[in-house]
Amino acid sequence: MKTQTLYGGVQSDLARVDAVFEELKRVDYGPLGEMLDVALAGGGKLLRPALSLLAGRFGHYNLDLLIPLAASVELLHTATLVHDDVIDHASTRRGRPTVNSSFQNATTVMLGDYLFAHAADQAVRTNSLRVVQLFTDTLMTMAKGEIRQDIAAYDSRQTIRDYLNRIGGKTASLISCACEGGAIISDQSEIWIAALRDYGHNFGMTFQIVDDILDFTGDEAEIGKPVGSDLMQGTLTLPSLLLMEHCPKENAIEKFLTRPNKERLAAAIAMVRDSDIAEECYAMARDFSRRAAHALDVLPDIEDRQTLLDLTDCILERRT
Amino acid sequence: MKTQTLYGGVQSDLARVDAVFEELKRVDYGPLGEMLDVALAGGGKLLRPALSLLAGRFGHYNLDLLIPLAASVELLHTATLVHDDVIDHASTRRGRPTVNSSFQNATTVMLGDYLFAHAADQAVRTNSLRVVQLFTDTLMTMAKGEIRQDIAAYDSRQTIRDYLNRIGGKTASLISCACEGGAIISDQSEIWIAALRDYGHNFGMTFQIVDDILDFTGDEAEIGKPVGSDLMQGTLTLPSLLLMEHCPKENAIEKFLTRPNKERLAAAIAMVRDSDIAEECYAMARDFSRRAAHALDVLPDIEDRQTLLDLTDCILERRT
Repeated sequence: MKTQTLYGGVQSDLARVDAVFEELKRVDYGPLGEMLDVALAGGGKLLRPALSLLAGRFGHYNLDLLIPLAASVELLHTATLVHDDVIDHASTRRGRPTVNSSFQNATTVMLGDYLFAHAADQAVRTNSLRVVQLFTDTLMTMAKGEIRQDIAAYDSRQTIRDYLNRIGGKTASLISCACEGGAIISDQSEIWIAALRDYGHNFGMTFQIVDDILDFTGDEAEIGKPVGSDLMQGTLTLPSLLLMEHCPKENAIEKFLTRPNKERLAAAIAMVRDSDIAEECYAMARDFSRRAAHALDVLPDIEDRQTLLDLTDCILERRT
Repeated sequence: MKTQTLYGGVQSDLARVDAVFEELKRVDYGPLGEMLDVALAGGGKLLRPALSLLAGRFGHYNLDLLIPLAASVELLHTATLVHDDVIDHASTRRGRPTVNSSFQNATTVMLGDYLFAHAADQAVRTNSLRVVQLFTDTLMTMAKGEIRQDIAAYDSRQTIRDYLNRIGGKTASLISCACEGGAIISDQSEIWIAALRDYGHNFGMTFQIVDDILDFTGDEAEIGKPVGSDLMQGTLTLPSLLLMEHCPKENAIEKFLTRPNKERLAAAIAMVRDSDIAEECYAMARDFSRRAAHALDVLPDIEDRQTLLDLTDCILERRT
C-alpha cells in the first residue's frame, strides 16, 4: 500500500497525529516511556486517522477537534492490538517485535489499559459527548467481536454469517467509527454522517476479508507474520469456511481442527492456495468495496471523495 | 465489614446500582452472558458506589445521574479486577472463583475491555464531560500504578514512598474518583468537590494499607485468599518494606526475594506476624484515616457526613 500520496488532501495533516503520540511518549516514568516507544513505534499507515480526517473534509474541517478524534481512533486500535498480542502470544506483528515479546504479559495488559485511557482522553478533547458515546459503543462491539472469535476457535460448526458478524464487530466497527466520528465532529447532516458510517463499515469489511485472504496467500516477508497464523490459533476465517463448505466431507481444515499440528496446517494452507477460494473471497471483498463506494453517492463530488474511492480500490489490491 | 446499615441514607438506593448490572447481564450472546454472571456475581460490598452516592448527598441528590456514576465506578473497578486476575493467575478472589479460573485467558482480557466499555457507557450517561474526563484520568493513573507495581516486583530497592505512590495510583485514585464524581454530579462548590476528593484519596490509602496488613495477618478463610499472596507474586507492600527497613541486613523478606519458595514465604509471614510491624502499619493507616475525616470539616454536619466518618473507622477495623 503506497500511503505517501494515498491520503490526498489530508496527507500532511497526519503529521499532527504523530505529534500527539510523540507528546504522549514523554512520561515521567522511564519504563513506561520505553513501552510506549514500542507500542507507538511510528511508521504505521495511520489508515484510521486518515479516514477520520478525510470524512471531516465534507464539513467544517477543524483540526483542533479532528486531530484528537483521529489520535483517539488510532490509540483505541493500538490498545486492542496490544491486548491481542497478550492473547495470541504472537512475537511479531507487521514484522516488528510486539510489545508482549519485549515485556511481561502482566505489564502488557496494563499498557493496553493505559492506551485505552489515552484514547478516551483524546476523545474527550473533541468536546462532544456524542463522539465519546460512539467510541464507547465501538469498544463494546469490538470486545464482543473478539470474545465471539475466541469462543468460536476450533469450532467447525460456525457459518459464514457468524464470520461476517464477527469481523463486523472486531474490525469494521472501528473503521466505521473513524469515519462517522469525522462526520459528527465537522457538523455534517445526519444523512452524510450515516453515509460515512456506511462507507466505513463496508470499507472495514473489505479490509478484513483481504487481510484474511493474505493470511493464506500472502508472502511471509511481505505480511510480516507466518502464513496461516489465524488457522494456527484456531480462528476460522472466510477461506477456511468456504473450503469447508465446498468440501464438507474430507478437507484439510477439518483435519487440522481435530488434531492441530504443523503438517496439517501446511496441508490446509496448500489446499486453499491450490483452489479458487481466494478468488471467491476477493469477489465478496469487491462486493463490500462496491457498497462502500456506493455509500458515498450522496456526498458532494470533491477531491476527498475521490480519495476515499481510490482507497477502497487500494485495499483490494494490497499485498501487505 | 457489616454493610447492611453502614451506608446509612443511601443504603436502599444501592439496589438501583445492582439493577444496572442485572440489566447489563442480559445480552444476546449466551457465552458472554455467562461470563458477566461470574464477573458481576453480586453480593459485593458496593463500597465505591456507596461513596459516590454519599458524596452526592451534599448537593442535588439526583439519582438519575448518580446511579450511572456509581455503576460506572463499580464497573471500572470490576474491569481492573478482571484484568488483574489474568495477570496474577489467581484462581480465587474474595473466596469466589475468578473469571479467569472459569474461562480462557484470552477471553478474560476481552471481557475486561467489554466491562471498560460499559463503565464508559455509564459515565457518558451522567451527561458530564467533566465526569468522563475524571474517569479517563483515573484509569490512566490506575494503569500507571499497576505498571509500576509489576515493574517493581521482586525489587528490594523500592522505598515506602514508592509504595505510597503506587497504592495512590492503583487504589486511592478510584475511590477518590467515586467521591469527587458524586460531588461534581450533584453540582457542589469547588471547595466541597476538593474536600470529597481529598476524603476519597485518604480513605483509599487507609483501605489499601489495611488490605496489605491483612494479607500478612489475616485469616485465610476470612480474607478469601492465601495469606502472603502479595509477597508470593513479588509485590512488596508496607509490612514487607518496614521489615526490610528495620532489619536491613538479615531478614526473611530479602531471603524470599533472592530465591522464592514456599518455605521462605512462610518464614517471611511468620517474621512479620511475630513483630510489631502490623501495629506500625495500622498507625500509618490511622493517620490517613484521620486526614480523610479532617477533609470533611468544611462540609455541613448532616447525617451522611457522620456515615462517611463511621466508614473510615469501619475500614480500619475490618478483618476481611
